[in-house]
Amino acid sequence: MALKFNGKYLKNFVSESEFEYLYPQIELCHNLLHSKSGAGNDFLGWLNLPFDYDKEEFEKIKKAANKIRSDSDVLVVIGIGGSYLGARAAIEFLGSEYYNELNELKIYFVGNNISPDYLNNIIKICEGKRLSVNVISKSGTTTEPALAFRVFKKLMEEKYGKEESAKRIYATTDKARGTLKNLADKEGYETFVIPDDVGGRYSVLTAVGLLPIAAAGFNIDKLMEGAQHAVKDFEVCSPDNDCYKYAAARNILYRKGKSIELMACYDPDWTKMNEWYKQLYGESEGKDHKGIFPASVIFSTDLHSMGQFVQDGSRTIFETVIDIKKPKTDFFLESDEENADGLNFLSNQNMSIVNEKAMQGTILAHCDGEVPNIKLELDAKDEHTLGYAIYFFEKACAISGYLIGVNPFNQPGVEAYKVNMFALLGKPGYEDQREELLKKLSD
Amino acid sequence: MALKFNGKYLKNFVSESEFEYLYPQIELCHNLLHSKSGAGNDFLGWLNLPFDYDKEEFEKIKKAANKIRSDSDVLVVIGIGGSYLGARAAIEFLGSEYYNELNELKIYFVGNNISPDYLNNIIKICEGKRLSVNVISKSGTTTEPALAFRVFKKLMEEKYGKEESAKRIYATTDKARGTLKNLADKEGYETFVIPDDVGGRYSVLTAVGLLPIAAAGFNIDKLMEGAQHAVKDFEVCSPDNDCYKYAAARNILYRKGKSIELMACYDPDWTKMNEWYKQLYGESEGKDHKGIFPASVIFSTDLHSMGQFVQDGSRTIFETVIDIKKPKTDFFLESDEENADGLNFLSNQNMSIVNEKAMQGTILAHCDGEVPNIKLELDAKDEHTLGYAIYFFEKACAISGYLIGVNPFNQPGVEAYKVNMFALLGKPGYEDQREELLKKLSD
Repeated sequence: MALKFNGKYLKNFVSESEFEYLYPQIELCHNLLHSKSGAGNDFLGWLNLPFDYDKEEFEKIKKAANKIRSDSDVLVVIGIGGSYLGARAAIEFLGSEYYNELNELKIYFVGNNISPDYLNNIIKICEGKRLSVNVISKSGTTTEPALAFRVFKKLMEEKYGKEESAKRIYATTDKARGTLKNLADKEGYETFVIPDDVGGRYSVLTAVGLLPIAAAGFNIDKLMEGAQHAVKDFEVCSPDNDCYKYAAARNILYRKGKSIELMACYDPDWTKMNEWYKQLYGESEGKDHKGIFPASVIFSTDLHSMGQFVQDGSRTIFETVIDIKKPKTDFFLESDEENADGLNFLSNQNMSIVNEKAMQGTILAHCDGEVPNIKLELDAKDEHTLGYAIYFFEKACAISGYLIGVNPFNQPGVEAYKVNMFALLGKPGYEDQREELLKKLSD
Repeated sequence: MALKFNGKYLKNFVSESEFEYLYPQIELCHNLLHSKSGAGNDFLGWLNLPFDYDKEEFEKIKKAANKIRSDSDVLVVIGIGGSYLGARAAIEFLGSEYYNELNELKIYFVGNNISPDYLNNIIKICEGKRLSVNVISKSGTTTEPALAFRVFKKLMEEKYGKEESAKRIYATTDKARGTLKNLADKEGYETFVIPDDVGGRYSVLTAVGLLPIAAAGFNIDKLMEGAQHAVKDFEVCSPDNDCYKYAAARNILYRKGKSIELMACYDPDWTKMNEWYKQLYGESEGKDHKGIFPASVIFSTDLHSMGQFVQDGSRTIFETVIDIKKPKTDFFLESDEENADGLNFLSNQNMSIVNEKAMQGTILAHCDGEVPNIKLELDAKDEHTLGYAIYFFEKACAISGYLIGVNPFNQPGVEAYKVNMFALLGKPGYEDQREELLKKLSD
């Protein structure tokens, strides 16, 4: 098991019997999920995807990735939400937040906001570089990526001409329909599929994540293998199913009044995985005025910012500590003759040991401060562990959502702001709302 | 006023009379603060610092910054918490999160975690580059920066020899005492002062922030001017004091049961300012089991991840929207002949207008969803606005902390994990705790 649930630091907060009492509900959710009879069962493609993914497309992805790596200095990835976060999180987990400083192929993400400064900066960075573009959007009409793609399509065509440009643009979109699919077929872009039954936040193991991850030089075979192992390890409902234990623990703590889950990792390369987690859990559970608020920190950095609050502020938090057992490298701390800074007691050992002791010390301190701690132990910063972890979190999220009593697979709440935005922007068909909103803004 | 409080979107949540009822308490806190008779009054140096800062040192800072800019490819900034976040937040606000891609002098931050991978990556990035180091630590014994400084001191001495190395290391530390001050004097590093009466999270307008910010090429005179204007604009207690209105609004909402403040900005260059805000408010207020939990998002990016929860999840949130009136650049959206993506309704205007409408639409949608919205309106992404905003947030935090009834200027809770960490690491003097902790870990 590349990811294990360690409930040791819940002992003072959650008794074994609480897990027992909840177990029939866990079983129920497991059955709802696997029988595909629960809410949102149109969107369960991710459940067996690590085995039944499109093998032919998988090889196409690797080929496209190799082409990008050979003919480009910069890959521009256009997408938002689920069509952005997973790929970025995976690349930074495997290749560090300094991926671009350390690799020949640079990867930049656009179309995930409406900031002109951001867009202009990326355009400037791209000047004089050999470019490829991966535009990721099921419909092709989501505002932010569509705007960015308009800009980059034009940029590419001006730089390379239509023919060469079409060879450097890759579209990940609906398999048959929609604006982007139509355009891609018309222009001759190579296309990849966002399956109909996999929602955005569950899509990192589809072409949505796989193409950028492979282009970044990582081994997507091992990624899928890790996910396959997780499918197997968590397919049976039992009190020993670690994935379900995590889902259970979250809900037990929620029912006791903990309203915030603070995901904490002692490795800064988990930073974007924190963001991926927040979309997965926040967007799945935040329904009907329910849900655990997902927040995150990186330690030991944020022990010097949020540490005070966690130790001693409002007692609304439980922590989920991501413990990555093996960093990629280590750093041997040598002794210092003078020891002016008094740190020789740390020396003659690897830095990872010091980091580990910081983690252990913090977990115990926070528990003493009445913060329940869930510990999730990951093997290593490699593709296998990542694939395993992705599936673990996806499945635990589904169970957790069913437990709390929501549909984990839709996101109806995101329409509200869009309607308003379109109305204010004068989109045809929204004229009534526009009147109303303008009045509210001027009152 | 470079930063204004706009309470328009609180109308359905907080009545005018609530501000009136709270006003005597605001006055009280104002008096406690200005008479220096409230809790933590040893740490009020920041209150008048924009006027009474050390002018001679200020010139030294600019000289050192120019030297760094002329003789270095990379500036390595070593520090953690308040000796890290403010400088980074300022640089990215003024120069974008892509500062390093866009500028000749690159700036990297180390000593803010205990990850060997992180350290090794930065060391690799520094290879073959002309280096300067700014080590920032009042005591010189805080573990993370002290460890990093051991490493970089050695690296610098091996690269340049002791004499030249000493000319390239700048130490920001206690003015008279402590490990780092002693070492700096002994080795001949140029030193800068962390004032005794300014705590870490309030220190960005001291040399702690000023040297890296100036080295990054920004105008620290304008920064201080902005802060001076804020001192003047908020020095009188009145119902029209926007800084105090923000402090009041936060506490009114807290007393109504809102437990989470979600800071949201529509410009990704505010990302690290979000982190700076979380330390300032989280570490100041998170005391005695009280405090508003500080969280943050960047929109429109996170409307596609956290948007669902904000719109429709647990009703525990209020939003504080950072509206930056003028981006540095803009992007004119041209019409597209074919309009296949249907976006022509957005065209023939600047992108910043679209971003603005997204913000307005979202604020109204979230208010409809029962999320109170505070709006803070900032002029521009320049040094003046930044200095003004920093002071605004610092002063509002002090008032807010007094209102909630804590000492806003200490952070006793951060000792707990440190004691444990030192004990587990075998630091002399912690032998008893070590026994106890090892037992807890093995149970």
